[in-house]
Amino acid sequence: MSSTPPLRVVIAPDSFKGSISAAQATAAIAAGLRRVWVDADLRLVPLADGGEGTLDAVLSAGGKRSSARVSGADHVPIDAAYGLVAADTAVIEIAQVVGLTREDVAAHAVEHRSTKGVGELMRRLLDAGIRRMMVGLGGSSTNDGGAGLLVGLGLKLVAADGRTVEPTPAGLAALTAVDTSGLDPRLAQSHITIMSDVNNMLCGEQGATAIFGPQKGVRQYALREIDARLARFAALVEAALGRSAKDRPGAGAAGGLGFALLLLGGELRSGAEVVADLLGLDAALEGANWLITGEGRSDAQTLLGKTPLVAARRAALKGVPATLVSGAVDRDALPELNRHFAGCHSITFGPATLEASMADAAALLADRAEQLARVFRAAR
Amino acid sequence: MSSTPPLRVVIAPDSFKGSISAAQATAAIAAGLRRVWVDADLRLVPLADGGEGTLDAVLSAGGKRSSARVSGADHVPIDAAYGLVAADTAVIEIAQVVGLTREDVAAHAVEHRSTKGVGELMRRLLDAGIRRMMVGLGGSSTNDGGAGLLVGLGLKLVAADGRTVEPTPAGLAALTAVDTSGLDPRLAQSHITIMSDVNNMLCGEQGATAIFGPQKGVRQYALREIDARLARFAALVEAALGRSAKDRPGAGAAGGLGFALLLLGGELRSGAEVVADLLGLDAALEGANWLITGEGRSDAQTLLGKTPLVAARRAALKGVPATLVSGAVDRDALPELNRHFAGCHSITFGPATLEASMADAAALLADRAEQLARVFRAAR
Repeated sequence: MSSTPPLRVVIAPDSFKGSISAAQATAAIAAGLRRVWVDADLRLVPLADGGEGTLDAVLSAGGKRSSARVSGADHVPIDAAYGLVAADTAVIEIAQVVGLTREDVAAHAVEHRSTKGVGELMRRLLDAGIRRMMVGLGGSSTNDGGAGLLVGLGLKLVAADGRTVEPTPAGLAALTAVDTSGLDPRLAQSHITIMSDVNNMLCGEQGATAIFGPQKGVRQYALREIDARLARFAALVEAALGRSAKDRPGAGAAGGLGFALLLLGGELRSGAEVVADLLGLDAALEGANWLITGEGRSDAQTLLGKTPLVAARRAALKGVPATLVSGAVDRDALPELNRHFAGCHSITFGPATLEASMADAAALLADRAEQLARVFRAAR
Repeated sequence: MSSTPPLRVVIAPDSFKGSISAAQATAAIAAGLRRVWVDADLRLVPLADGGEGTLDAVLSAGGKRSSARVSGADHVPIDAAYGLVAADTAVIEIAQVVGLTREDVAAHAVEHRSTKGVGELMRRLLDAGIRRMMVGLGGSSTNDGGAGLLVGLGLKLVAADGRTVEPTPAGLAALTAVDTSGLDPRLAQSHITIMSDVNNMLCGEQGATAIFGPQKGVRQYALREIDARLARFAALVEAALGRSAKDRPGAGAAGGLGFALLLLGGELRSGAEVVADLLGLDAALEGANWLITGEGRSDAQTLLGKTPLVAARRAALKGVPATLVSGAVDRDALPELNRHFAGCHSITFGPATLEASMADAAALLADRAEQLARVFRAAR
């Protein structure tokens, strides 16, 4: 005698930014569904977009969390977390080193912040035999064109008088030459995946400084000058290596870290896609009856490849309906969202303030997931 | 070759008080579902609880709207709407005559308001051959113990000096005797259904005056005196007719209209149940796949037999899952609501003010119904 197999639901939300992590959101949805289906086969796949929360999301499926003492954005040593997901594969979230929300970042102005610590971290990983690195950009406090990262990996920046130049927007003012001879040779045998959804080039009107500089503290009057410094730095290092990257999409990600990593041969991919791969979302979707995803706020931006859209697309390929449950859903985006989601819902149960919704997000999400599961069950 | 029969959905919400009527709510839900299921068999059954909106809801299924010129609560003639739903059956919504939201009501204090117009309306219906009356209580501005209604039907109120007494809380101060000889004899051949969810008795600490008087404008210092006047009136008329009603549940409904109608042999029933019967909800549920109901706000009160609960119970008897979509849902009531509803949802799509939600209720409701239909469809 055979019995009906238990319902299989994949739970794969992003974090609800400023409120709950992807792991917390996943747990909340699972708790809600469990109240309806005691025996359901729930597959928990907390997602991320390559920015803050990526490391936590990736490690939720396994791997080992570790940390290394490297330079923070303000040159003070910090312990930066990273993840080992296979013998030769590491996951780096650059926000763990130079994140805009790190407390140590406020000490220096953006002109004096550097990504050197990210390069130092990569060198430590190379020392440990790591040859595959997934680097999540996003949430950076820096705008050094990736000069710091390259210096951390052995590049020398030289001024007209022969002095070494600091890999910061301020330091690059004196840059006249670069020496690439010390760049770590093991990089040539390494594979770097750049996780980013930013398609800006390094310089110009749509470049890193012009677009993302102001939110990191670059003053309006300094934008043009700093952009010019990054352009000169990039031209020098491109010439020295005989490669180019500054005009490629993504070079402007994370204040130019994208440029440095592209120059090292890195492959630019959507952070959400890489995380979905790392966590085995496709395998989880095999034979599933339903996917629930979500994020803090869903709107037209969601349609540009944000995590819930990536999840929904993969679900569609497996014939699995995907329902969205977010903190808020912009109704103007519903006509487009409807093409990807089998229902777009909010965690709110009535009129409420943003503050109250965010403070109670986990409980609201659990309750909403439960109520949607009741509708889903009723239809079967 | 046979094809799958179209999905059959019964749409049976109450009004969203202060925002949209039951008919508007029904239309909004239908519009949302139609975006998902072009060919669905949608059965529209706008409900009501016997209070304001009852007449509109009942007439949405057929019948004829008419009106009669009768005394308003403030004695000025008004045109009061009523409905004819069969050759000998009328539906009266007392709020159409003495409703608290009528503009003419503000002219007099509650002590001078009377339900005489309701009695006049019933007499006109008797003249027209009507012998079955469904009277929706709720939303009254009056607290006259139903004295006005009985006077409108032929009762005489007499003072010690023989003068006729006004059927108002103020007038009843002088009451010493009643003359029932003029009461319309045709009432004996009539069947009156009282639609009310109020179970209070006429007088006492849980009586009409104590509980509902203040919200109609009875001053705190006058509560006891007016309660005593209603008690004396009731005792006199009960003695004269040799019947009793003042201590029965529902006698305190609509400022004592319940008492007067019970005394005339009226049968007290839940307004929602009567409306559901009149509109043929049970027949609509035959073979249905889903019921959607809703109201302005769902909370512990909903569980005391409000319209959506009545709809859900009837759906359950037919094996049809019922989903609730309201302006707001009190999460504290969810454990109990879950016993009756396959999903309790709000029309909000994120943090929002009550004012914005109410102003945009129809569009929000249509969108939410659509999004829930997408989940329902995905599960099938």
